[in-house]
Amino acid sequence: MLNDWLAPKAAALESRGLNRRLRARSADEDVIDLAGNDYLGLSRDSRLIEAAAEAVCRWGTGATASRLVTGTTTLHEELESALAAYAGHEAGLVFSSGYLANLGVVTALGGPGTLLVSDEHVHASLIDAGRLARSRVEIVPHNDVEAVTKVLAERNEPQAVVVTESVFSVLSDAAPLAELAATARANDAVLLVDEAHGVGVTGGGRGSVHAAGLAGLEHVIVTMTLSKALAAQGGVVLGPEVLRSHLINRSRPFIYDTALNPAACAAALAALRVLIAEPERPVAIHSAAARLAAVCGVPAATGAVVSVPMPGPRETVRAAELCRDNGVLVGSFRPPSVPDGISRLRLTAHAGLSDADLTRACTVISRVISEVS
Amino acid sequence: MLNDWLAPKAAALESRGLNRRLRARSADEDVIDLAGNDYLGLSRDSRLIEAAAEAVCRWGTGATASRLVTGTTTLHEELESALAAYAGHEAGLVFSSGYLANLGVVTALGGPGTLLVSDEHVHASLIDAGRLARSRVEIVPHNDVEAVTKVLAERNEPQAVVVTESVFSVLSDAAPLAELAATARANDAVLLVDEAHGVGVTGGGRGSVHAAGLAGLEHVIVTMTLSKALAAQGGVVLGPEVLRSHLINRSRPFIYDTALNPAACAAALAALRVLIAEPERPVAIHSAAARLAAVCGVPAATGAVVSVPMPGPRETVRAAELCRDNGVLVGSFRPPSVPDGISRLRLTAHAGLSDADLTRACTVISRVISEVS
Ligand SMILES: Cc1ncc(COP(=O)(O)O)c(C=O)c1O
Ligand SMILES: Cc1ncc(COP(=O)(O)O)c(C=O)c1O
Repeated sequence: MLNDWLAPKAAALESRGLNRRLRARSADEDVIDLAGNDYLGLSRDSRLIEAAAEAVCRWGTGATASRLVTGTTTLHEELESALAAYAGHEAGLVFSSGYLANLGVVTALGGPGTLLVSDEHVHASLIDAGRLARSRVEIVPHNDVEAVTKVLAERNEPQAVVVTESVFSVLSDAAPLAELAATARANDAVLLVDEAHGVGVTGGGRGSVHAAGLAGLEHVIVTMTLSKALAAQGGVVLGPEVLRSHLINRSRPFIYDTALNPAACAAALAALRVLIAEPERPVAIHSAAARLAAVCGVPAATGAVVSVPMPGPRETVRAAELCRDNGVLVGSFRPPSVPDGISRLRLTAHAGLSDADLTRACTVISRVISEVS
Repeated sequence: MLNDWLAPKAAALESRGLNRRLRARSADEDVIDLAGNDYLGLSRDSRLIEAAAEAVCRWGTGATASRLVTGTTTLHEELESALAAYAGHEAGLVFSSGYLANLGVVTALGGPGTLLVSDEHVHASLIDAGRLARSRVEIVPHNDVEAVTKVLAERNEPQAVVVTESVFSVLSDAAPLAELAATARANDAVLLVDEAHGVGVTGGGRGSVHAAGLAGLEHVIVTMTLSKALAAQGGVVLGPEVLRSHLINRSRPFIYDTALNPAACAAALAALRVLIAEPERPVAIHSAAARLAAVCGVPAATGAVVSVPMPGPRETVRAAELCRDNGVLVGSFRPPSVPDGISRLRLTAHAGLSDADLTRACTVISRVISEVS
């Protein structure tokens, strides 16, 4: 049954060269990593490692239940308060992943009385969230504030949520947050900003919402993942206390999911402390990103990701392979994972790159790009 | 905006006594825990703690990216092989939670060509998965094999997936797996069984699908969470290799989510090794469950959870509070979290309970129940 069903699909992918396989890495791979999202270079920092190991000893290896039963520890609450304070919000609620945080907040606010207005470039988790929310969803052109305003003004639903990202995951460009917040307020709507690629990177680390002076406004909600710059796992929803209580009571992916494990909580909290103590880390991301962008002939991006358009999917794959052969890991995006159909190399700048690594990476990448193009 | 929207909802819950709050536990709480899902009593086992701490040192605190980029480590693959071998399947794919594993497999198999036939008692994650799948979903009465057969036989969709749990999370009762597998096969359908409450508990630990001789059949798929008996975090989908490849290529909650953190992978793997080495642990769960059931005057359950019907929601809350005041933590279910509208105490038997703890718990619980009823 499953074989008859799925094997022809696999063969079709294979014949178009699109079949994806997993490549397992070993613990001591000797490569320069420009593919992962460890933006602050903290995943192997001894302070995070010690905090995680200590949490495992103190709290155990699992949270043991839903946050509503025995899954909430004082560690979860400490992490929530620290994240909220850092990013300038009244309260925070931690989920077991960024994906579930997005599903959780959108579905808890969604329903027939709520219009969702979603930027066409938002992440898969926000698209799925919209599908799950039982709301009407209007997808608007990328960063088009006028379109957002029109849809908000013409709606029949009493509530509306405008959904966007502060730094978009593929193009690494910024959303017009101040304008979106203004039109949301003027139209009695809420603005939800996913800062997955903003936290630790933009606004000196506090994210783009904070930098734009929007953090803590009563109609602004932020989600973050703990799995990129904060080098752990999990997600958080930040906003007013009334939102936090609402999620505790109504968010199915919060209520019916086991709480985030203690090791990840402790690692994220330790990462946040490093970020506060070492404000030079976000700066290092941007200077590395600028060097990579220059060598690739693309403008400097808002986020840590430098997105390099390639002639086509085949060239993208070949370029990534050549980079790897030369000791540099880069990411690649091909349709359907690119919003505009253009295949790209995805280079992640991060604060953990030494000057020598960065120089070497630049040499390899510029050679490979000219070879492949 | 958010306040006008959400505060009245909070007030309405409050006035009906249904507002839920989180209670954070400390690391050294001196209670007998019959509320969490640490069925094998392994969450603070030194072998798991050491494995998790070692993994954090070796691999870092986060997986750093999606499984398709740099998120797959040899540790993930080792865990997948070990889980598949243990439960008798060809292959396994680990997700960052059981919730996302359920969303991931159902949505990747769903679509207009696939009918989903779902037991009315399945978990929130499977209900959400059905909503997200763009399939027609038929909800059938609990454990009603005839209804399943009828719906399968009368369908127009070429494919169908029957969705159930091996041990249901609220009532702790068993699904008729052999009959469901037979009718699925006869009607050219797939059977998907969530063993969240089966792994580590039923079938000597290998789960109910294995015990029924159904593991490894080409039309049988299993999901498990790593966050209950395996004392970690994460989820896994088990089945034929062709399913694993399909998920790698098509499952959005797999592709667009950061991989499970190394500490959780290592803890789950260590838990599996303990389970294999100490087959007396699942036995201890069942004898503890039998003692608890006897004292509560309910029949022994299939799983670790002893589900005790109460006169009403108020009595349930009071009983849980009285138990806590006497040093015994128990769970409670009230509408809408109960499939049949009956409020219940939820007592989790686990292998980590000493004889003295169990005796004390039984004394407290029987006194409280007669006091409240
Ligand atoms: C914009 C965005 N939101 C949410 C997520 C999901 O976060 P997580 O990986 O923690 O589930 C990601 C990436 O994984 C992302 O890029
Ligand atoms: C039957 C069932 N499936 C899935 C899940 C979700 O697993 P997780 O908590 O690992 O996300 C749970 C409980 O949490 C469950 O009880």
